[in-house]
Amino acid sequence: MKGINVGLLGFGTVGTGVVKILKEKQSLLRAKIGTNIVLKKICDKDIESKRAVTVNKDILTTNPYEVIKDPQIDIVIELIGGIQPAKEYIIEALKNGKHVVTANKALLAQEGKEIFALAKNHQRCVYFEASVGAGIPIIKSIREGLVANRFLSIRGILNGTSNFILTCMSEDKCGFKEALREAKQKGYAEADPSLDIEGIDSAHKLILLVYLCYGRLFELKDIFVEGISHISSVDLLYAKEMGFNIKLLAIAKKIKDELEIRVHPTLIPQEHLLSSVRGIFNAIYVSGDLVNDLLFYGPGAGQMSAASAVVADLVDLTQHIKAGLFRPIMDSVEDTTIHRLKKIDNIESRYYIRFMAIDKPGVLAKISGLLGRYQISIASVTQKERRKQKVVPIVMVTHEAKERNLKEALLKIGKLDVVKDKPIAIRIEEL
Amino acid sequence: MKGINVGLLGFGTVGTGVVKILKEKQSLLRAKIGTNIVLKKICDKDIESKRAVTVNKDILTTNPYEVIKDPQIDIVIELIGGIQPAKEYIIEALKNGKHVVTANKALLAQEGKEIFALAKNHQRCVYFEASVGAGIPIIKSIREGLVANRFLSIRGILNGTSNFILTCMSEDKCGFKEALREAKQKGYAEADPSLDIEGIDSAHKLILLVYLCYGRLFELKDIFVEGISHISSVDLLYAKEMGFNIKLLAIAKKIKDELEIRVHPTLIPQEHLLSSVRGIFNAIYVSGDLVNDLLFYGPGAGQMSAASAVVADLVDLTQHIKAGLFRPIMDSVEDTTIHRLKKIDNIESRYYIRFMAIDKPGVLAKISGLLGRYQISIASVTQKERRKQKVVPIVMVTHEAKERNLKEALLKIGKLDVVKDKPIAIRIEEL
Repeated sequence: MKGINVGLLGFGTVGTGVVKILKEKQSLLRAKIGTNIVLKKICDKDIESKRAVTVNKDILTTNPYEVIKDPQIDIVIELIGGIQPAKEYIIEALKNGKHVVTANKALLAQEGKEIFALAKNHQRCVYFEASVGAGIPIIKSIREGLVANRFLSIRGILNGTSNFILTCMSEDKCGFKEALREAKQKGYAEADPSLDIEGIDSAHKLILLVYLCYGRLFELKDIFVEGISHISSVDLLYAKEMGFNIKLLAIAKKIKDELEIRVHPTLIPQEHLLSSVRGIFNAIYVSGDLVNDLLFYGPGAGQMSAASAVVADLVDLTQHIKAGLFRPIMDSVEDTTIHRLKKIDNIESRYYIRFMAIDKPGVLAKISGLLGRYQISIASVTQKERRKQKVVPIVMVTHEAKERNLKEALLKIGKLDVVKDKPIAIRIEEL
Repeated sequence: MKGINVGLLGFGTVGTGVVKILKEKQSLLRAKIGTNIVLKKICDKDIESKRAVTVNKDILTTNPYEVIKDPQIDIVIELIGGIQPAKEYIIEALKNGKHVVTANKALLAQEGKEIFALAKNHQRCVYFEASVGAGIPIIKSIREGLVANRFLSIRGILNGTSNFILTCMSEDKCGFKEALREAKQKGYAEADPSLDIEGIDSAHKLILLVYLCYGRLFELKDIFVEGISHISSVDLLYAKEMGFNIKLLAIAKKIKDELEIRVHPTLIPQEHLLSSVRGIFNAIYVSGDLVNDLLFYGPGAGQMSAASAVVADLVDLTQHIKAGLFRPIMDSVEDTTIHRLKKIDNIESRYYIRFMAIDKPGVLAKISGLLGRYQISIASVTQKERRKQKVVPIVMVTHEAKERNLKEALLKIGKLDVVKDKPIAIRIEEL
C-alpha cells in the first residue's frame, strides 16, 4: 500500500501532538482511510531538544526546503506560526505542488487572498481546521455540513485567553490585571498577551469564518475590534445583577444587503448558552437559513485538541489525493447579495452604560435629557450607591439605539461637570 | 457539465424541503461543487396533492422501481420512513448500484447490519446525516472531523418531543399529560407518541452514534431504555430545588473494556450546558481522547433543517461519484478494546430517590437503615412537608451506588408498611 507522505514545519507543542497522533494512531487511521500517512520529514530550528515523542533522527532537519522541495512529500503541515517565514514556506510548498495544512489564523487572515489564489492556480488545497476553535470541527461543518445554507450570522467566543480572564473576573471578582496574571501562570496567556486581550486573535478567526460563510476575505482594518483590557470588575458585577454576563464576542451579521463584522465585549443574557461558556472554552453560534441556530462548543486551545484538527485535515487531503481530486468542496462562494460592510457608527444595539456622577439632585435629569436629545431611550436605570455630593455609579440599559448617537451623547455627557471619568458603554447582544 | 442524477422516494415534509433546496439553491450548489444535482424522479403514493414547491409532472411517479431501477440515477434518497417497504427499496437501490441517502434512524438501527454490509459489497455509500439531530452535522463531525479520536463518551438529548415535554413540565409546572397535549397541538408529537416518549427514538439514534464511534451496531434489546411517561412534575420541582434539571439522556460511555449504553431520564446540574437545552432542541456532548468535550447543539427537527442535512449528504456523494471513490472515510472501525456491554444492573450512579411515606418518628431511620444495608450512602435528604400521620414525600440524593443494590433496596423499602406507592428513582449524571 503506497502511503501519503507528509512533511512538518514546526516541531513545537502542536507539532509534537501531530507526530504523536500519527505514531500512536497509525493503525486506527489506516483502518479508517485505507492508506498509511507517513511522516517523512520534520523541520525545526531546534532539533536537539527532547520532545514528548521519539522520532527517527534521520527525518529531522533544520532546513525547511528539505521538506518543501522533497518531491515525495504530498502534504506540508505549517505549524510555525507568525507571518514570516511561514508565508514564504507555504507559498513555496504550493508552488512545489504540495497541499498545505496550517493552524495559522493570523497569516491566513492577513495574507489569505494571495495564498488561496495561489493554491487555486496550482490546484492544491490549503486546509486550516485547527485555526479556529482548536478541535471543534467548525470549518468542516460550515463548509460541508451546512453547504446548502445561506448564513445569517456567526456569533462566537473565539479566544480562550480572554474568556478565561473574563470568567475569572466574574467568578472570583478580581480585577483585570490579577486575572491576566492568573492566565499567565496557568499558561493560558503569552508573555505579550495583546493579540488575545485586544481582540485581534478573535478578529483573525472571525475573518476566516466570514470567508467561509460569505466568500469574502476582509481585512483587519475593515473590522471594528475592541478588547477587554478596559473592562472593570464592577461592570461584570452590575451586569450580573441585571441578568447578563460579559463575553468577548466576535459577531458577523447579515442585515439586508449589509454585513456587520465586529469584535467587542458584549453583554449576553445569563440564560443563553453562550453565557455559560467558561474558562478557555470556545463556542460558535452559527445561524443558517435552513438549520436556524447551531452551537459548536469545546476547548479553544490545547495541544492534542489542535493536533486532532490538523490530522482530520490530513485525512481529508489523503482522500483527495487518492482520488486525484482538487478541492472537493469549494472553500467558499461569494455571497453577492452583500453590497457593503456596515460601519460601526451605523449599527444599532442596546447598550449598558455606566456613568460616575456626583450624587446630587438633577444629575439624572441632565444625563437622561442629553440621551433623549440623541433619540436614546432608557430601559432601566439604577444608582448603585447613595453618597451625597460624592461620586457614585449610575448604571443604565438603553433600548435599541444608533451607535453614532450614543457616542455623541456620551461625549456630551462626559463633559458635564457633574460627571467624572469617561462614561463606559458596552453593547448588548440580542440572542 | 454532466450532472449527478438523484431520485427521491417520499415526497412528504422533508422530501418537499429537499426538492425546494435543490430548486432554489441550484446555482449556489453548482458554484460550490462544480456539478449540477439533477432531481430526475420523485416517487410517492400521493402525487396529486399540492406541495409547497412546484415540480414538473413528468418526474412524478407512484412506482418506486422507476426510481430504483433507472440506470441514469446515481443517488436514491429514501424519506419514506418506517421499516418496510423502505428497507426493500434501499436494498434494491444498492443492488442497482445507487448510493443511498436516508433519514431513517429506525430502519438503520434495526436493519443496519444487513444494509451496511450490502452497501460495502456493492461499493456504495449509505449516508444518514439527517437521522440524528436534523441539521446538526454531528455524523460528519464524528466520522471526519474527529477521525483521529478514540471516544470516551457520548451524551445527548436526541429527542425533541420528549425534551419539549420535559421543558413544559419544568417551566409551566404542568403534568405529563398536559405537556404531551401541548406537544401534539404544536405538531411536535405524533398521534402515537410512544416511540418518542418511551425513549425508543433516542435509542435508535444512540445506536447509530455508537456505531460511528465504536464500530459496532448494537440492537435495541441490548440497550437499557426508559422513557419519560412516568416522570411527575413534583420530581422536576424537587430536582430544580436541588440545582438539577431532568432530561431524557442517551448515554454511551466506555469504562475500561466495557461499554455502557442507556437511555433514561437523568438529573443534570443546572449549570451544565445540557441542562439549558430547551424545547425541541437537541444537544450532543461527545468526548474524545484528543478533543475532550465537544458540544453540538441545534433544532432536533424541522423540515428545512433535516433537508439541509440530506443535501449535505448528496453533495458529499456527488464528490465521491465524480472522483470514482467509494466511501472516502470508512463509516466506522471497530474498537476492539471493548469486550462487553455493561448490564444496567452493574452500572454505578448517583440517584435521586423519592419515597411517599407516613410522617411519623422512625420512618427515616428504617429507610436509611435499609439503604445502608445495601451499601447506599445518602448525600442529602429532605422531608418535603410535615403532615403528622399522613403521607409526605421524602427526597434523597445518594452518593455513587450500584444499580443492582439500589433496585433491591428500593424493593425492600417499597414493602415497608409506612411507605406508600412505589419509590421513584432517577439517575444523576456527572458531567
